[in-house]
Amino acid sequence: MRTRNKPWAKDRLDEFPSIVPAIPQEHKGKWNAVFGNDNPIHIEVGMGKGQFITGMAVQNPDVNYIGIELSESVAVVALDKMIEADVPNVKLLTINAEILADVFEPGEVDRVYLNFSDPWPKTRHEKRRLTFKKFLDLYKTVLPENGEIHFKTDNRGLFEYSLWSFSQYGMLLKYVSLDLHKSDFEGNIMTEYEEKFSAKGQPIYRCEVQYQE
Amino acid sequence: MRTRNKPWAKDRLDEFPSIVPAIPQEHKGKWNAVFGNDNPIHIEVGMGKGQFITGMAVQNPDVNYIGIELSESVAVVALDKMIEADVPNVKLLTINAEILADVFEPGEVDRVYLNFSDPWPKTRHEKRRLTFKKFLDLYKTVLPENGEIHFKTDNRGLFEYSLWSFSQYGMLLKYVSLDLHKSDFEGNIMTEYEEKFSAKGQPIYRCEVQYQE
Repeated sequence: MRTRNKPWAKDRLDEFPSIVPAIPQEHKGKWNAVFGNDNPIHIEVGMGKGQFITGMAVQNPDVNYIGIELSESVAVVALDKMIEADVPNVKLLTINAEILADVFEPGEVDRVYLNFSDPWPKTRHEKRRLTFKKFLDLYKTVLPENGEIHFKTDNRGLFEYSLWSFSQYGMLLKYVSLDLHKSDFEGNIMTEYEEKFSAKGQPIYRCEVQYQE
Repeated sequence: MRTRNKPWAKDRLDEFPSIVPAIPQEHKGKWNAVFGNDNPIHIEVGMGKGQFITGMAVQNPDVNYIGIELSESVAVVALDKMIEADVPNVKLLTINAEILADVFEPGEVDRVYLNFSDPWPKTRHEKRRLTFKKFLDLYKTVLPENGEIHFKTDNRGLFEYSLWSFSQYGMLLKYVSLDLHKSDFEGNIMTEYEEKFSAKGQPIYRCEVQYQE
């Protein structure tokens, strides 16, 4: 997701501490206090412009959502959507996914969403893909036993790689669709990318995988 | 694969015992003697008209192939292809796949191919799909430890189901392509169906899965 650099983004994000907690690490193990309830917490790694996570928060008021996006210039676009949605159950963090374990206790996150992640098609960039083994290790540290990743993409190569990577990791494939918009999956919230690519008739791939013991 | 009934098919098959062994059960544990060598044995369950298995036999002289097709009216079409190919490393059996364990010793088959199997799309027909748990049990009885199934189809629903079924069974996904003809997979031999459907631009799905302990 390419977005022009916005030097003012950091200031803008800081203006909304109720949506963008200033020091995420301070809430480790206490995110339920931030939301003011004991509802499950679902995170999206690589939230982008936030249409998915904001839409999910509106659709599912009994789930708490946290969108994670490293780029502040991208996250401010998501911030505007969250302000407009005006729901209490969505937050955003501009952290690197690699520090997830500093921000959440083991088992504190109930589900991880990955949507239209950067495909990094070159073999030498495999380690940057968000479904590479190192990241699966990382998500596992914050999920409960049998935690789940829900993943969708239009990128065939990334989806093939990810199915392979999940299987190598010993994860269970609970659900897979090779053409989401022709499937019977209900309640789909589209990302910005998804609207663009599915309008061109390209299939959207989606799966749900679960960690095993 | 719909083919008109051919009352003469049985007689025709019986005329070529060097390709169609009369009583397959007699060779259980001794298929290498039938082929006259110790090369690995790969079988195709639901061979249809035999273009794939015959092409594979021509391409890979160091592998022995056995095509299995219940319908004699369909198998005679494959027989003609095998006669024409005139290679010693392909046989055909008109048996029901459910008796595989009566025809092969454990570990006697090195690989199972499934190509464009009947999708049986209705949920109540799940048990008839060749990637249903019962069939995975069956293939396992004749394969070695870590034996493999290589599967391709144009049918999205069947492929989704099969990826799920393989995973539920604890099998490892070694390779997956969601558009075989645009992938870097080499040495692909097309089936009759595959030629027809890929000419229409439809993607062909393919995977290789391996039994785990």
